[in-house]
Amino acid sequence: MNGIKEYAEGLAKRAKDIVYEVAGKGTNDKNAALIAMAESINDHRSYIIDVNKKDLEFAEASGKNAAYLERLMLNDKRIDGMIQAIRDIAALPDPVGSGNMLSRRPNGLKIMKVRVPIGVVMMVYESRPNVTSDAAALTLKSGNTVILRGGKEAVNSNQAIANSIREALEHTGFPRDAVQLVDRTEHEIVNELLKLDKYIDVVIPRGGEGLIRAVVEASRIPVIKHDKGVCHVFIDQSADKAKAEAITVNAKVQRPSVCNAIESLLIHKDYPHAASVVKALVKNKVEVRIDRKSMKAVEGLPAGLKDATEDDWYTEYLDYIISVKMVRDVDDAIDHINTYGSHHSDSIVSEDYGNVQRFLDRVDSAAVYANASTRFTDGGVFGLGAEVGISTQKLHVRGPMGLEGLTTEKWVIYGDGQIRE
Amino acid sequence: MNGIKEYAEGLAKRAKDIVYEVAGKGTNDKNAALIAMAESINDHRSYIIDVNKKDLEFAEASGKNAAYLERLMLNDKRIDGMIQAIRDIAALPDPVGSGNMLSRRPNGLKIMKVRVPIGVVMMVYESRPNVTSDAAALTLKSGNTVILRGGKEAVNSNQAIANSIREALEHTGFPRDAVQLVDRTEHEIVNELLKLDKYIDVVIPRGGEGLIRAVVEASRIPVIKHDKGVCHVFIDQSADKAKAEAITVNAKVQRPSVCNAIESLLIHKDYPHAASVVKALVKNKVEVRIDRKSMKAVEGLPAGLKDATEDDWYTEYLDYIISVKMVRDVDDAIDHINTYGSHHSDSIVSEDYGNVQRFLDRVDSAAVYANASTRFTDGGVFGLGAEVGISTQKLHVRGPMGLEGLTTEKWVIYGDGQIRE
Repeated sequence: MNGIKEYAEGLAKRAKDIVYEVAGKGTNDKNAALIAMAESINDHRSYIIDVNKKDLEFAEASGKNAAYLERLMLNDKRIDGMIQAIRDIAALPDPVGSGNMLSRRPNGLKIMKVRVPIGVVMMVYESRPNVTSDAAALTLKSGNTVILRGGKEAVNSNQAIANSIREALEHTGFPRDAVQLVDRTEHEIVNELLKLDKYIDVVIPRGGEGLIRAVVEASRIPVIKHDKGVCHVFIDQSADKAKAEAITVNAKVQRPSVCNAIESLLIHKDYPHAASVVKALVKNKVEVRIDRKSMKAVEGLPAGLKDATEDDWYTEYLDYIISVKMVRDVDDAIDHINTYGSHHSDSIVSEDYGNVQRFLDRVDSAAVYANASTRFTDGGVFGLGAEVGISTQKLHVRGPMGLEGLTTEKWVIYGDGQIRE
Repeated sequence: MNGIKEYAEGLAKRAKDIVYEVAGKGTNDKNAALIAMAESINDHRSYIIDVNKKDLEFAEASGKNAAYLERLMLNDKRIDGMIQAIRDIAALPDPVGSGNMLSRRPNGLKIMKVRVPIGVVMMVYESRPNVTSDAAALTLKSGNTVILRGGKEAVNSNQAIANSIREALEHTGFPRDAVQLVDRTEHEIVNELLKLDKYIDVVIPRGGEGLIRAVVEASRIPVIKHDKGVCHVFIDQSADKAKAEAITVNAKVQRPSVCNAIESLLIHKDYPHAASVVKALVKNKVEVRIDRKSMKAVEGLPAGLKDATEDDWYTEYLDYIISVKMVRDVDDAIDHINTYGSHHSDSIVSEDYGNVQRFLDRVDSAAVYANASTRFTDGGVFGLGAEVGISTQKLHVRGPMGLEGLTTEKWVIYGDGQIRE
């Protein structure tokens, strides 16, 4: 534990020391810094890619799988994506300083609620190095300072990106420590940081279940979780066959590796085309795991389907796999989703007005759909611009978390000597 | 630990089992239940007061002080207050079902953000039994179910109140377990409940620092803190003498036992009437603890003032005591408040436009005032109606927490077969 506590405290205290300086910057200054950040990453492009190669070699040598290496890898196209993302964030409206409550009380007090930065944000994430620049840009645009802690295997790539950003900050009149990267890889540093609620205002973990659970358990700081997506499509008895199949296939295979893809399909016991939708999934190279008991009466299922176990209903495959079950009615579907799902995104396909309303009212998820693919849960699609992630919790922000999610409000009161009677 | 885990799980699971039934109730049904709750408490008035006498005897015998007994005590006037509070909550607008974002996307998706209940709320509080009825009414009005855990010494009073409420719920078609009281007093039950993030959506602790810290450290459930109020008045060099003294005295003595009363006074080193404001405090029976070093040049201070220690600047006295210090300028005042304060409510008294703006922008508190008493931080004054408390944290709700703070939002999307390209 050589100096770990001091190192963590140093980062956190520094982030807090400059928080009011950064919060006080105007929109034009912040946008100029963002443009400079994008340019600096462009200028250091070949250096970043070289450093990333070393991270890749080390990760490969330490036995990481192909999917991991694919997420870690940077090339020109990905650097272009990072640069464009920063430019897009510069073009978004600044949430700071806006408000929608203003009143004058009978005693003459003028009371308003104003949107302000949260303060010090800590991001904990895994392998993708582009999160470093996305998170830096989003937190800066919303007037916060940030402490970034990426995956151990990406530390050199992240450092190269962060240093490009910090250089740009310095050149545009911002403290370079508005963006700080944890550049030591000891795991204990995260746990030390998570104790420092005196300095850090919020921690945002993005990654697998293990990461999220560890952060929630260790943290004294409020956490905004970006947890897994165990999403569902429910095909009601009255569903339109073409829509049901198009939506189910799209929600599963259009991009299986993301959190708003579905993992389970629920079908009303009297829906007449159950075998057909299963066949459509198989045709799209999806491994279908069925609940043998509820599906025993379904005729015409393809041969050789696997059995789903109890664990399957909780599982986020992020792959060409789906679990399928027949349910008694819309209430049975709602119960299943509220019990096994992760409260992310769920859709009903139905032509029955009452069942649609019941599903939308009672499914307890961040996004509930009627007759559309769950794949639309996204900050861009919902009109929020770039997103920090998809919050699966209920407090502060639910669903896609945009710039506004990185702010809080404060009450500002203008008086003229008023006292309370 | 005799059955403690099972007991806690039983409460939490039951609260979750009926959460969608309660969430689905309309405003008229909820208001009818609230009116019935008020009537039931009225009907059981003498029983509740009798039971409270036993709690009082027990608390007195176990050595609780007079202030504690005063908070615990119920009489006709206080029961009237509880009944009126429930009626007031019935008259408030229902936050559930409202929204302010609705858009139609280019592909025809209709996307809206709708306010919904949070789900299962847990309240942990200390001695005042009226919190039992206030919290039950607020959580029911906002469509939630609630688990109440009051002070050990108040358990019989709380049980009498909760049973009156539960009877009324049953008579108006609600599950009586929409309001559950922890009626066993073992401390471990709270810690068991705080692990049950599977069933409980949010925990709201209200009470002293020790209670809040214990809940934050033990909880896996998101917490909305209602922490202490170390509030300040800063008298700037240019302050109007009459306003400065009226605001300082009001903020300290109008009701010293509440969280929006001030605990510290900061005075600009060149403000010419420092001795006068200290005298005004002393005249109002306030014990003044001064920073001897910064105040050594102040002439005309009353004799016999105590010295403030470093601890004083962090202390919420909730009593006729104040700490006083001279500061160099507005920035020095802002630094002091952001360092020692509890980010609750702070006020500047000044006729200088720039200093007022700087103070309002940079003091990092839930409510910041210019030329008014901090005593106005209150859900009623701010136009929110009845309040659950004053949140001193930045996420989800900041400052007075009304009915809206007990809700979250969900995204509801109506489609017609849309899939993602």
